Amino acid sequence: MSETQGKPIKCLAAVAYKAAEPLTVEEIIVEPPEAHEVRIKITHTAVCHTDAYTLSGVDPEGAFPCVLGHEGSGIVESVGEGVSSVKVGDHVIALYTAECGVCKFCKSGKTNLCGSVRETQGKGVMPDGTSRFKNLKGESLLHFMGCSTFSQYTVVADVSVVAINKTAPLQSVCLLGCGVTTGYGAAIKTANVQKNDTVAVFGAGTVGLSVVQGAQARGASKIIMVDVNSKKETYSRQFGATDFINPMTDLKPGETIVSKLVEMTDGGLDHTFDCTGNVKVMRDALECCHKGWGQSIIIGVAAAGQEISTRPFQLVTGRVWKGSAFGGVKGRSEMGGLIESYQKGDLKVDQFITNKRPFTEINAAFEDLHHGDCLRTVLDLEK
Amino acid sequence: MSETQGKPIKCLAAVAYKAAEPLTVEEIIVEPPEAHEVRIKITHTAVCHTDAYTLSGVDPEGAFPCVLGHEGSGIVESVGEGVSSVKVGDHVIALYTAECGVCKFCKSGKTNLCGSVRETQGKGVMPDGTSRFKNLKGESLLHFMGCSTFSQYTVVADVSVVAINKTAPLQSVCLLGCGVTTGYGAAIKTANVQKNDTVAVFGAGTVGLSVVQGAQARGASKIIMVDVNSKKETYSRQFGATDFINPMTDLKPGETIVSKLVEMTDGGLDHTFDCTGNVKVMRDALECCHKGWGQSIIIGVAAAGQEISTRPFQLVTGRVWKGSAFGGVKGRSEMGGLIESYQKGDLKVDQFITNKRPFTEINAAFEDLHHGDCLRTVLDLEK
Repeated sequence: MSETQGKPIKCLAAVAYKAAEPLTVEEIIVEPPEAHEVRIKITHTAVCHTDAYTLSGVDPEGAFPCVLGHEGSGIVESVGEGVSSVKVGDHVIALYTAECGVCKFCKSGKTNLCGSVRETQGKGVMPDGTSRFKNLKGESLLHFMGCSTFSQYTVVADVSVVAINKTAPLQSVCLLGCGVTTGYGAAIKTANVQKNDTVAVFGAGTVGLSVVQGAQARGASKIIMVDVNSKKETYSRQFGATDFINPMTDLKPGETIVSKLVEMTDGGLDHTFDCTGNVKVMRDALECCHKGWGQSIIIGVAAAGQEISTRPFQLVTGRVWKGSAFGGVKGRSEMGGLIESYQKGDLKVDQFITNKRPFTEINAAFEDLHHGDCLRTVLDLEK
Repeated sequence: MSETQGKPIKCLAAVAYKAAEPLTVEEIIVEPPEAHEVRIKITHTAVCHTDAYTLSGVDPEGAFPCVLGHEGSGIVESVGEGVSSVKVGDHVIALYTAECGVCKFCKSGKTNLCGSVRETQGKGVMPDGTSRFKNLKGESLLHFMGCSTFSQYTVVADVSVVAINKTAPLQSVCLLGCGVTTGYGAAIKTANVQKNDTVAVFGAGTVGLSVVQGAQARGASKIIMVDVNSKKETYSRQFGATDFINPMTDLKPGETIVSKLVEMTDGGLDHTFDCTGNVKVMRDALECCHKGWGQSIIIGVAAAGQEISTRPFQLVTGRVWKGSAFGGVKGRSEMGGLIESYQKGDLKVDQFITNKRPFTEINAAFEDLHHGDCLRTVLDLEK
């Protein structure tokens, strides 16, 4: 049993007080977990584009002040009443897509979108409607995506955390909390890519490159990465892309990215993935699919109010438009398998860590995201 | 061997000379079939909305003068060289969705959209690029959808016709050439409705009502028909609908058709079908699907230039947007099974025939389509 059990913990956190302003790294108070809650000592977190999206103020559901962060790992410090799935000392990954196992969604066998904590998670509070965070002035701070990993300690619902093999390095597997799992799962679960299928991926960030590795794992015959930054070609090929196209520089007069891809694949792709969040790209990704069966998976988060569109004929002639959240992965049931793949060397994770920083440099980590050569910055919360 | 074999046949046809004008019922010349072609004595044809759509001039691919009609049955009069799949005297249904069995599409096992005659069919000519129809002035007339059933004799590619059991009444099974098969197949093949699933169908025409009977055959627990014409309620329930909603009259203040359907189905539908061709309806049909797994199937043909749209979040949260052409049915492989279902009494076909007319009243049959109480008018080409 930890010394801090049942007591508030004072620790460092990065607080988002206002949209479009730097985070404030300061001491906050983290209350003990209530029933069916878990308090985690976060050891590592990465910064993902979704954190930046919400911080920018563009996210209509973003509310402040809050503790952002959703791609993190750590060690269970204490648990509330009734928690049986994890225990003190467990190494864990926080899950922004919960898995309760008993709701309509979990029981359907058709989706990973658990409904158990959705409503309160969206409001930035714990399932009982309150927060476990306050600043030293006593002001309550909101949670974020059910995780809030930008704090040395956080509290999450017990359905929002999974224990992992202790031999897995926490500084690496934090990336399985979002980006790597999202892309890899979209390829192997949502799209269910098969041997010799053709695949195009739009956007060579961590998610897109993880789609590539999922497609490669399945034996896709052609994996085309499309990105406007030619510097991403090297990364893309390292992760398994067979081709790279920069639509700004690689198209001949009269060619479009759709016509180019259709020509490269004898009629279109079996699977395409949007990892950009750009609705025009989403349309291209659909329309370069093969007539009769090609499917396009939307992963990227579009800006508020943006809509996708196409002629219905695209669907009537057999193309399928889908989406994927957290790669269709059920975090508590399936994380163990991903960790195992990583530990066997089948799933690349370390290769995404292009930058490492102490937690206090978190604002610089947000800056890193805007550099084309950064995939992930991992922050060490113990430094 | 028929007396007419190898010779041109003079017979009655309904020629569409200009968009938005009545058809001209007159004698035309139908040339004998070339290699891999079949000349059919059409005994019965129905008039479908797609014929009316093209005749209206709104279809950007519609070309005139042509012989319309694509929902027809008849008897093989003669066959060209190399035809082995049907023989003189066979009872047949013309297929606007060919099945060659050897193209990339047919061999994929993933789609019914055969590519063998697609290009020439779209241009209104036979696979060799020419027409088999001319009027008595010697002017060439275009084919339509590879069928042209509005003529007492027509010529089709051998991949565009299927022989059927001679005990099946030709005056009924002509409807399997389009409407009934399209709706029924969309439910049992494209959507693959399962026992206890919930279904909503937008548009209570022949296609929509056939979706209903497909859903009922699969044991759907709730089948909601949505139509703006309350007169369609009786038909809908006869075909198996459990509920009927007229969005013009049945919504309370503040309700939308989407919110109403979501409320009726505890979170949304497992499957929805657009059988209207209205892009706004297509959006509603998607958005009333259940989060996590609900899928919406577009069947209706939208007007030229119209686009569907939605927020990508609808797909990221697990809804799937698809389409269906000819119900996903492979005409030559699978028509036999549908005929059998019909003959066993499992598949309703006769119930769609609300009007019967001699062929010479074909313009009146187009008028019938605009009456809410008409499902199908079947024309007898021997009268």
